[in-house]
Amino acid sequence: LIELAKQVLNRQTRGIARAITCIENDHPAREQLLSALHPHCGGAMIWGITGPPGSGKSSLVDQLISRQRAAGKKVAVIAIDPSSPFSGGAILGDRLRMQKHATDTGVFIRSMASRGHLGGVASATADTIRVLDAAGFDLILIETIGVGQTEIEIVEMADVVLLTLVPGLGDEIQALKAGIMEIGDIFVINKSDKEEALRVKTEVEYVLSLKYHDHPELRSPVVMTSVLLNSGIDELEQSAEAYFQKLKSGGQLEIRRRKRIASELTALLNAKLSVRIHQVLDLQNHIERWVEQVYLQKTSPYALINQQIEFIFREFKNS
Amino acid sequence: LIELAKQVLNRQTRGIARAITCIENDHPAREQLLSALHPHCGGAMIWGITGPPGSGKSSLVDQLISRQRAAGKKVAVIAIDPSSPFSGGAILGDRLRMQKHATDTGVFIRSMASRGHLGGVASATADTIRVLDAAGFDLILIETIGVGQTEIEIVEMADVVLLTLVPGLGDEIQALKAGIMEIGDIFVINKSDKEEALRVKTEVEYVLSLKYHDHPELRSPVVMTSVLLNSGIDELEQSAEAYFQKLKSGGQLEIRRRKRIASELTALLNAKLSVRIHQVLDLQNHIERWVEQVYLQKTSPYALINQQIEFIFREFKNS
Repeated sequence: LIELAKQVLNRQTRGIARAITCIENDHPAREQLLSALHPHCGGAMIWGITGPPGSGKSSLVDQLISRQRAAGKKVAVIAIDPSSPFSGGAILGDRLRMQKHATDTGVFIRSMASRGHLGGVASATADTIRVLDAAGFDLILIETIGVGQTEIEIVEMADVVLLTLVPGLGDEIQALKAGIMEIGDIFVINKSDKEEALRVKTEVEYVLSLKYHDHPELRSPVVMTSVLLNSGIDELEQSAEAYFQKLKSGGQLEIRRRKRIASELTALLNAKLSVRIHQVLDLQNHIERWVEQVYLQKTSPYALINQQIEFIFREFKNS
Repeated sequence: LIELAKQVLNRQTRGIARAITCIENDHPAREQLLSALHPHCGGAMIWGITGPPGSGKSSLVDQLISRQRAAGKKVAVIAIDPSSPFSGGAILGDRLRMQKHATDTGVFIRSMASRGHLGGVASATADTIRVLDAAGFDLILIETIGVGQTEIEIVEMADVVLLTLVPGLGDEIQALKAGIMEIGDIFVINKSDKEEALRVKTEVEYVLSLKYHDHPELRSPVVMTSVLLNSGIDELEQSAEAYFQKLKSGGQLEIRRRKRIASELTALLNAKLSVRIHQVLDLQNHIERWVEQVYLQKTSPYALINQQIEFIFREFKNS
């Protein structure tokens, strides 16, 4: 274990990969490893990138990696990926990306499945961020492939959220867009070479002008990018860095990070309390009996749990 | 409250809408209402519809409503929608759909935000299904707009999951597709009028043939549909109904429903245990102190919680 922590701290690719696997499998050593790495965390800047499928997030991330590397920064990417064992793991595009940077120890890219984590993907992502932070990466990018409630929660673990939008993806995408607009710190209108990109920008700016009517100084930057024309990506990089610095000097970064720690501690405490109570009282056994009663409609879930909870508390106090 | 339950049982649209709002706001009457309705549940067939954005789920749902109505069935739709207060609530398409069926009391359509539910959107969806079930709808359709981990969990509350795929949506959609393939009971290749639809069908059938190599009789049906050509939708309807009957007669429906009750009871119990312990011990106060220690890197989340949990248990037993 101490060896593994050392490898992570020395930014050895194999050690980092093993540490993340240990998190993903919820290996018994996970907690100790994270505790050992914790004092070395806090130095990285964390960007989240999300947006509807087809908005070109992966290509943007690729561009950001190259630029940050050129500036001498060490970059790690966590791609939250809905692929499953059934379908064969990490997606092709990611494998190609990884190959491209395979010989560069200043880049680390890892796909992480959004399913099948015992402690939940949010907790696995938080721990993975810590491993990469301790390993000394300057920038950690979290990219989501799916776009839904869990993915939004994950990307909100970042210090700065880049929300990628794109012209002309149809009605359903518009709805998705509507649902995620409020989580963006920086709005990226990608594929700016396309017709209608300007219209999307105007729309977004209009919505933002309403939202920040009384606080125009807080208005999120809107940046147009095109990987095809290789334009706007410097501006995006600068906007994100400037936003991070503004958060930091204004004290909001500390507030965000403390909030994140609070929700992490609450989740961890709840999970451990529940595991412990389940074990002590052998609740699994109770639940099997209760399912019978609810299935046969003798009682409803609420009535049953409300009635049993007092009993459980008494039983637990006497255990 | 008894009045509201009566209105629901009489399938009065306003009563049903009020009951769902009561769930969404986690109104104090929620639990009692659900308990009152519970004995009247269990009669509805529940289909979930999911798939990448742009795969035409809404149009398919629209077609299914019309056909089921023509056959005299009462149909309710819950559309899980990522839109937020900031962006202005339910999406345009949904509002149009609702208008279309506004005078038909045999149809009920409701958008439900995936964010901002105190008890979580999964629990709100489960309770809404119960309200609609008690109200006597024959078919309840759950449609997701977003596609991510939470949305997958929601659609798995259905008895039968229709997974909608479509040709030519690019790489990222392919990845999404990969992630959701395993949750489908019926595979719908929509927009079959498009070139390449047949190729998607062949691909899906190949994957399914590998998955069910040893149990060909369990292989999921693959149905090609086109709303444009008005083709395949009868077949889809029949496949889903036949699949439901097969589940029912084979005993798998009971197993699925019991599993759903078990996870619901576990979630409910854990939530109530945690609320209670937090109140009794004023944990919020503790957590604020702990955040300080973790933020200043004096200790790690795991080390801290592991150390505190024994203390919390002792304190709780003595409370």
